[in-house]
Amino acid sequence: MVDLTTLRADTPGVQHVIHFNNAGASLMPQAVVDAITKHIILESEIGGYEAAEAQKDAIQDFYTATAKLLTTSADNIAATANATDAYARALSAIPFQRNDIILTTVNDYVSNQIAFLSLQKRFGIKIVRATDDSSGGVSVDDMADKIKSLRPRLVAVTHVPTNSGLVQPVEAIGRLCREHDVLYLVDACQSVGQLPVDVSQIHCDFLTATCRKFLRGPRGMGFLYVSDKVLSSNLAPLFIDLHGASWESADTFCLRPTAKRFEDWEFPYALVLGAAEAHRYALNVGIEAIANRNADLCATLRSQLIQLPGVRLLDEGNRLSSIITLISERKSANDLKAALSAGHINTSVSPHGAAILDFDRKNMLTTALRISPHYINTDAEINMLVETLHRLLA
Amino acid sequence: MVDLTTLRADTPGVQHVIHFNNAGASLMPQAVVDAITKHIILESEIGGYEAAEAQKDAIQDFYTATAKLLTTSADNIAATANATDAYARALSAIPFQRNDIILTTVNDYVSNQIAFLSLQKRFGIKIVRATDDSSGGVSVDDMADKIKSLRPRLVAVTHVPTNSGLVQPVEAIGRLCREHDVLYLVDACQSVGQLPVDVSQIHCDFLTATCRKFLRGPRGMGFLYVSDKVLSSNLAPLFIDLHGASWESADTFCLRPTAKRFEDWEFPYALVLGAAEAHRYALNVGIEAIANRNADLCATLRSQLIQLPGVRLLDEGNRLSSIITLISERKSANDLKAALSAGHINTSVSPHGAAILDFDRKNMLTTALRISPHYINTDAEINMLVETLHRLLA
Repeated sequence: MVDLTTLRADTPGVQHVIHFNNAGASLMPQAVVDAITKHIILESEIGGYEAAEAQKDAIQDFYTATAKLLTTSADNIAATANATDAYARALSAIPFQRNDIILTTVNDYVSNQIAFLSLQKRFGIKIVRATDDSSGGVSVDDMADKIKSLRPRLVAVTHVPTNSGLVQPVEAIGRLCREHDVLYLVDACQSVGQLPVDVSQIHCDFLTATCRKFLRGPRGMGFLYVSDKVLSSNLAPLFIDLHGASWESADTFCLRPTAKRFEDWEFPYALVLGAAEAHRYALNVGIEAIANRNADLCATLRSQLIQLPGVRLLDEGNRLSSIITLISERKSANDLKAALSAGHINTSVSPHGAAILDFDRKNMLTTALRISPHYINTDAEINMLVETLHRLLA
Repeated sequence: MVDLTTLRADTPGVQHVIHFNNAGASLMPQAVVDAITKHIILESEIGGYEAAEAQKDAIQDFYTATAKLLTTSADNIAATANATDAYARALSAIPFQRNDIILTTVNDYVSNQIAFLSLQKRFGIKIVRATDDSSGGVSVDDMADKIKSLRPRLVAVTHVPTNSGLVQPVEAIGRLCREHDVLYLVDACQSVGQLPVDVSQIHCDFLTATCRKFLRGPRGMGFLYVSDKVLSSNLAPLFIDLHGASWESADTFCLRPTAKRFEDWEFPYALVLGAAEAHRYALNVGIEAIANRNADLCATLRSQLIQLPGVRLLDEGNRLSSIITLISERKSANDLKAALSAGHINTSVSPHGAAILDFDRKNMLTTALRISPHYINTDAEINMLVETLHRLLA
């Protein structure tokens, strides 16, 4: 069980706002803020390279803590600028040929879908989207059929899509990919930090995530998990630099053996140290405890939201996440967000362009209000949110 | 003329170290530190997305200040995670075909050379390196011959290489590229902030740079200039996200008209604001004043270094930069760097792997000591450096 008093005392933001935008970016604990600002000041005092050298071990702890979060080894972790950057580096390692197939879902993240379309345009690959089952999540049976019949070059699944509260069955799909020896890329941007994400269970080859969302780290940091299978197969990002490879002669370079081959040389080390602190913080609270607390909070919140006049929750899937999206007959999501914001309640909107396949299927051309609680939210905050929405929609 | 007293009072680091590692990362002014830490604290208080919204105009100033530095428009600037990231995004926009030629120099930056080799391996492009002239810089005549005879897909030149003090004739090469309608990519990582870099004179299509070096900004920030020609030709990075394009239907996306199409959606806004402050700071001091001051400092320093026992400067080219590399018969660069560091004098080493073509040509298998002054260094600091080196080499 989480000790809410202590955890909230660690979080300066709870004095200022009621934060239900954790799927955007969470409130950083004070320890994360301190890790960042301390290193920026050190850099200004002794120099940027000299500060990195002085904090070498603490920087390596980013890899250790991140690996522990995912149940893997530090050598399988690359630090990246954000989740999209991690995703692009992973995709860039696959030498796609004309007619290669990327098998994905209708709920995969918009930036991933645009990247697939760009690959289609450039290299003539094909994009196939598995159908959903009646629950609203991707059908594992259809995935199995398509993996067998189409032999995709890559299977790509977003663990927790940006809207609808869905949690996709990434472990079951991972078993299929392993069985049929297909590369498997999981976008865990919205799941890491709110749910257990265990790459030894998911059996993916790549997993991408960000630090700023449910992990409560800084903006502008993400990471990439790379499997031993990928590392030993000599796959490497298309744009590799002197950090990922050594220049051996005019015409040859030699790949680094670890996942660091997916990194650039240069990093904002203050943010790396802040992210390390955030990842340790999540581990200390305990991911199981966080997931349980979030499930309770979201069940309470969903049961209250559904009673609001003219409100429809967009929930779907057998298992629900800490992302709750809703539409109202009476007010647009943008108006609701603005009115809540005036009362220092942070939420966000999911625009149509963020998930057009999902929205179109639901015959919605509008935007949705996205409410994303996290374990440090209180029942009192939930009441305040629901009461405010009630007043706005009355 | 620069007012050294004020500028040094702005710089907390000068109280702690004698910093001659500006080609690594410069000492940030206090105003840059304050911009970063202030925004990190704001994010922790009101939320990461909410803080970005509150600072929207200040964030846009990053583009305005950076454009002013390069003599271009804000719409031609993309923020990136670092210079290598900017370089990769630019390269990724070019749909290379088998046998396409990248024409470059023997002194182009190691990370760029590795990226070219990776493109060679993946797509079968060819890498051609123009020869140097007797001064040690790239021969503009040879560039002209090769542009005419080989019709390269891309000409790629590093303005100021990482060693040897060389400044390449990027304006003259730009005239050739424009005349023959060839794409032109300039790596200005080591030149922006120490020399005037004017894209309206260079006539490049892409220019990449970092904020942490001579611009005195934070680590983990860079930028990319993209010409109107590129933007209107619909070239876009291979891995484009919802920030660079809008998802229009299942199979189509629409490119953003500005250079922001080369960005990801997510950013470390604290660092963007710090970089904006650094760029304004450089503009306020004045790039011409900085360049003049640096030329004076480096002339003084070179004349003293050359007198040290057994020291050879690796300078070459008709025009010299604020990067001074040397080797000593008596001590390795690593030993010299460590000994200087013990006296709080920061320098760096250029390893063999960072410039193998250049080092091999000079029959050097060793590393070089790199000394990179910047305008806030004093004559007293130069004396201290030279005296310490003299003692170490005596």
